[in-house]
Amino acid sequence: MHCLVTGGAGFVGSHLVDLLIEAGHRVSVFDNLSSGRRDFLSHHAEAVTLIEGDLLDLESISGAMDGIDIVYHLAANPDIRLGTSITDTDLKQGTVATYNVLEAMRLAGVEKIAFASSSVVYGEAEVMPTPEDYGPLFPISLYGASKLGSEALITSWVGTFGLQAWLFRFANIVGARGTHGVIFDFIHKLRADPTRLEVLGNGRQEKSYMEVRDCAAAMIHLIATTDKAVNCYNLGSNDTCSVRRIAEIVVEESGLANVSIEYTGGDRGWAGDVPKAMLDPSRMNAAGYNASFNSEGAVRHTTQILMQEIGLDE
Amino acid sequence: MHCLVTGGAGFVGSHLVDLLIEAGHRVSVFDNLSSGRRDFLSHHAEAVTLIEGDLLDLESISGAMDGIDIVYHLAANPDIRLGTSITDTDLKQGTVATYNVLEAMRLAGVEKIAFASSSVVYGEAEVMPTPEDYGPLFPISLYGASKLGSEALITSWVGTFGLQAWLFRFANIVGARGTHGVIFDFIHKLRADPTRLEVLGNGRQEKSYMEVRDCAAAMIHLIATTDKAVNCYNLGSNDTCSVRRIAEIVVEESGLANVSIEYTGGDRGWAGDVPKAMLDPSRMNAAGYNASFNSEGAVRHTTQILMQEIGLDE
Repeated sequence: MHCLVTGGAGFVGSHLVDLLIEAGHRVSVFDNLSSGRRDFLSHHAEAVTLIEGDLLDLESISGAMDGIDIVYHLAANPDIRLGTSITDTDLKQGTVATYNVLEAMRLAGVEKIAFASSSVVYGEAEVMPTPEDYGPLFPISLYGASKLGSEALITSWVGTFGLQAWLFRFANIVGARGTHGVIFDFIHKLRADPTRLEVLGNGRQEKSYMEVRDCAAAMIHLIATTDKAVNCYNLGSNDTCSVRRIAEIVVEESGLANVSIEYTGGDRGWAGDVPKAMLDPSRMNAAGYNASFNSEGAVRHTTQILMQEIGLDE
Repeated sequence: MHCLVTGGAGFVGSHLVDLLIEAGHRVSVFDNLSSGRRDFLSHHAEAVTLIEGDLLDLESISGAMDGIDIVYHLAANPDIRLGTSITDTDLKQGTVATYNVLEAMRLAGVEKIAFASSSVVYGEAEVMPTPEDYGPLFPISLYGASKLGSEALITSWVGTFGLQAWLFRFANIVGARGTHGVIFDFIHKLRADPTRLEVLGNGRQEKSYMEVRDCAAAMIHLIATTDKAVNCYNLGSNDTCSVRRIAEIVVEESGLANVSIEYTGGDRGWAGDVPKAMLDPSRMNAAGYNASFNSEGAVRHTTQILMQEIGLDE
């Protein structure tokens, strides 16, 4: 299959590209390189076509659809916290960009889409672990709103224009080439000051973590094995890890002695942060995919890799 | 309270303005008059301030927020079917317009919003009557996507910036001043040809209907009596009416003899039409509001009024 991966030069996208190439697919990547990096794909040389373009330009993305069998739409603003200061980033980079992808697909007759949604569509869910059929969906971050708005556009394209869709609601995805997120932040903080580690909130925030290659492999597995008009799956491990525990793991793995872990307090890291999110991955498990790392395992593995990538010494 | 009603010169909006004025509130209306009409408000003379403006212009809607206590955000593209031909209308008039309303509120410090959402956010629900907590939310029309995208933006503003919100998921709202919808269409068709009535689909489509003054009164009642951060209510009657039955009622009320009712066939009127929608209004009932018309009563009442407004003779 000829796959187009939006955001394919980014964190999750570049791992997905690796696995698609390994599986023998033809891969094109559409990326504006705002957080994606050319060198995340450089090991593929000519095997991957990188189209540098912006999803807010309908003409640009339309030009990338020729001959495509399936679009993996992963491009988005990766920084949830940004929504608290600049309020239209998620709307544009999320919902409006998704509209352009869908419209370009409709115009070119491309019929399958896989979308990187997120557990944040559940907002502060009252049922945990949270299954895919949970309602109501009241996201509390602007990033979450952009993911739910994108999902809704996709299902409307299924209902109106006959598209087929896979909606993947990601846990917190961690791993090599991470460009943001709590582990990445902690390592950068220790790098700047090896004596103390500031944690946003009281550290009791607790979420499901999934290793990035697990995430990419789960997507490919589920697309190959499921065939409804809308296929919606939580992608995550079967447990959670607290921010407090992540801080401890990062300090342990750093080998630094006498690091003071300091909490800014409050039950969430920032306005729009969900204090506790635990995904129910049993639908994915029943479809034959099980994550190879649990949450703490994914965190520790990622800590070790990112410490090598980032380096602890300034 | 000083209320700003977006879409206040429109069908539902103008009835809401009537009831807000009756209840002693101060009312400003923001409307681009694309489907709203100045004469829907003309009986209020100076009691209502009409601001003619477009929600896609952030500056324009920001200028209307001064001194406002609550925004009733009703403005939207009213024609669900339009999404099948022009695909960005609902995104712009729905989701992006809602973003501008929220951003204007944030900039001006306005803290309460009531939003006209719709039963179409439920898509083809597997549970009927459908309660507010139903999931998954997979709307099948672009209009539905714009409503769910708007709801998500609103809850994210609640979670991030401390807004308070009422999400009202409307049944099919019918009544005086109707400017679109199945009854309106049927009367116009009989006006053009009194010998036959064409019905889109097989006529077995079946939905909940609510009379427009019931809808407006329910909103005002619920805002006065509920106080959560996000208050989500289905607004509808306790039953449904089929399109086949609506066609019969319209023919009966027309007094015309020998009208041939003809069905185009298929289980839905157009791509993106939900064949069956039955809302569960028990949360609204429990909060003390009951619709005065059932679905068939609302349809018959509306047929009588619209026949007077539109006239059956060309």
